[in-house]
Amino acid sequence: MSDFYVAGVDLGGTKIYTVLAASNGEVLAEIKIPTEAEKGPQHVITRILESVALVKREAPLASRRLRALALGAPGPLDTSRGIIHFAPNLNWQDLPIREILEGKTGIRVLLDNDANLAALGEHVYGAGRGAENMVYITVSTGVGGGFILGGRLYRGSSDGAGEVGHMTVLPGGPLCSCGNCGCLEALASGTAIAREARQRVAGGGGREILAAAGGDFGRISAVSVAAAAAGGDPVAVSIIEEAARFLGIGVANLVNLLNPSLVVLGGGVMKTGELIWEGVRREVGARALETARARVRLVPAELGGRAGAIGAVALALQAVGPLE
Amino acid sequence: MSDFYVAGVDLGGTKIYTVLAASNGEVLAEIKIPTEAEKGPQHVITRILESVALVKREAPLASRRLRALALGAPGPLDTSRGIIHFAPNLNWQDLPIREILEGKTGIRVLLDNDANLAALGEHVYGAGRGAENMVYITVSTGVGGGFILGGRLYRGSSDGAGEVGHMTVLPGGPLCSCGNCGCLEALASGTAIAREARQRVAGGGGREILAAAGGDFGRISAVSVAAAAAGGDPVAVSIIEEAARFLGIGVANLVNLLNPSLVVLGGGVMKTGELIWEGVRREVGARALETARARVRLVPAELGGRAGAIGAVALALQAVGPLE
Repeated sequence: MSDFYVAGVDLGGTKIYTVLAASNGEVLAEIKIPTEAEKGPQHVITRILESVALVKREAPLASRRLRALALGAPGPLDTSRGIIHFAPNLNWQDLPIREILEGKTGIRVLLDNDANLAALGEHVYGAGRGAENMVYITVSTGVGGGFILGGRLYRGSSDGAGEVGHMTVLPGGPLCSCGNCGCLEALASGTAIAREARQRVAGGGGREILAAAGGDFGRISAVSVAAAAAGGDPVAVSIIEEAARFLGIGVANLVNLLNPSLVVLGGGVMKTGELIWEGVRREVGARALETARARVRLVPAELGGRAGAIGAVALALQAVGPLE
Repeated sequence: MSDFYVAGVDLGGTKIYTVLAASNGEVLAEIKIPTEAEKGPQHVITRILESVALVKREAPLASRRLRALALGAPGPLDTSRGIIHFAPNLNWQDLPIREILEGKTGIRVLLDNDANLAALGEHVYGAGRGAENMVYITVSTGVGGGFILGGRLYRGSSDGAGEVGHMTVLPGGPLCSCGNCGCLEALASGTAIAREARQRVAGGGGREILAAAGGDFGRISAVSVAAAAAGGDPVAVSIIEEAARFLGIGVANLVNLLNPSLVVLGGGVMKTGELIWEGVRREVGARALETARARVRLVPAELGGRAGAIGAVALALQAVGPLE
């Protein structure tokens, strides 16, 4: 009965990442195409189906048939009803995406939060294999997360769990995109690092950071800060250290609350170098209680930008495949 | 086969609270006796057994027999091996309490964290009945917590989960008993409220608080602060509001992380009046993301100081009784 395959789709505001996998989880093909969100929901739905058609064409399928499609999407959504409540990047509201996609494909469709699926992907196929309790955090433009508790993806009571980025770690701290102040995302994301760097440069400092951005103020990013820090620039080092400190506080909080055996850290910011990891480890060492600290390991994510789509494959296989 | 009963014991540094219950959960007798921890582990074990003998004597037992005893204890412990690693209040280290008690009683003994058992007690018999995902927080001398996730007590990977009191909510904030700075416990516990009040009084303010403590500086407590606040004293009001603010930040963080349907708040500080509740609700309203905020209710605990022992009864019944 393993004569089928599934598709995992990670729907982002700028790109759609789609993976086709066999019933044993083997990846047969993957593709990344632009979302073209500005053309509206109907167009994006067409793009999702196009991406699936493209991976199907690439894969050596023979007689196998597509049995399920799982979609990871940002924003508040309802996994059981298959509705995306609100996706600002896509300009969507209360879209019954599952019903629409099931109508167009005739196969089973599943919907879940993109960060949750990235956590699931790392758990089933990546750095988190075998972990009973795992915290996944991705630090890039924003800060997202997902929890595997008791071996299963934990979604909470309205699919809203794992909002690691909106943990307050500095009351009265900088304004966050969510409207509050002092969220982890406002202090440790790539966006926050770039914002801090631009402030320093605008204030007359951060010469090395500006140089790393090719002298273009508008191109200053977490990457330019990391590059300047790698070169020993003290301003850049202090910016990264400060972000790492808050990230470490957030991780320590999660260790004290959830006592996981594993924390998987992914996203572009975690790839900027050892400095950010050192800061995180230092805070966890200082702030996590002994019992929990002795049990936990901090490791880098393994699946990179593929995590969400790979996690969608895992979800689809859990729903229809031999895994469950 | 319901012809048996179980004992739930909440072992504290100063008192032992013991409940005897029938197999249907009906409480038959309960008692509170001093722990007398200063007399050493052997004596405390004798006290535990005495408390059980006392409730047995009180209850109308007829032919029923004691089938299990569950013990809630503070500090790092190992529920699966039945060992209390460290209990500073009791001056215990690596005590195989389950083995000892099983040897002395000949019945099945279970060990768990006291705050976890209080959470379980509220979930099975108190304010949290029926909640699929529930956060329990107790705010008294310290700040403790326990989580019910997916309908079950969540213990984490080394029985260390739920350490709500050691979530950092103000980096660089006041020193906590755990050795770190800015933990929720150091900002919102009864101890923290009393410390802040004594500082204000020592600084020449807080006249009403001192009056509420009978003019005795050493007797200033969260209760005196609450009494002065109830009388409209602005210093006392500001102290309670500040504690409530940090407690609300902690609760909002938990709502964003765990997306529970219910937050149960207990402990002496939560009984000091509406002011603390208002502050908590305000922060949760401001800081919790819409999806999670819309789903959650904040309610007072129902079992008071009995929660731990009642939760121990629930644990014992889950292990041997008709509940599982």
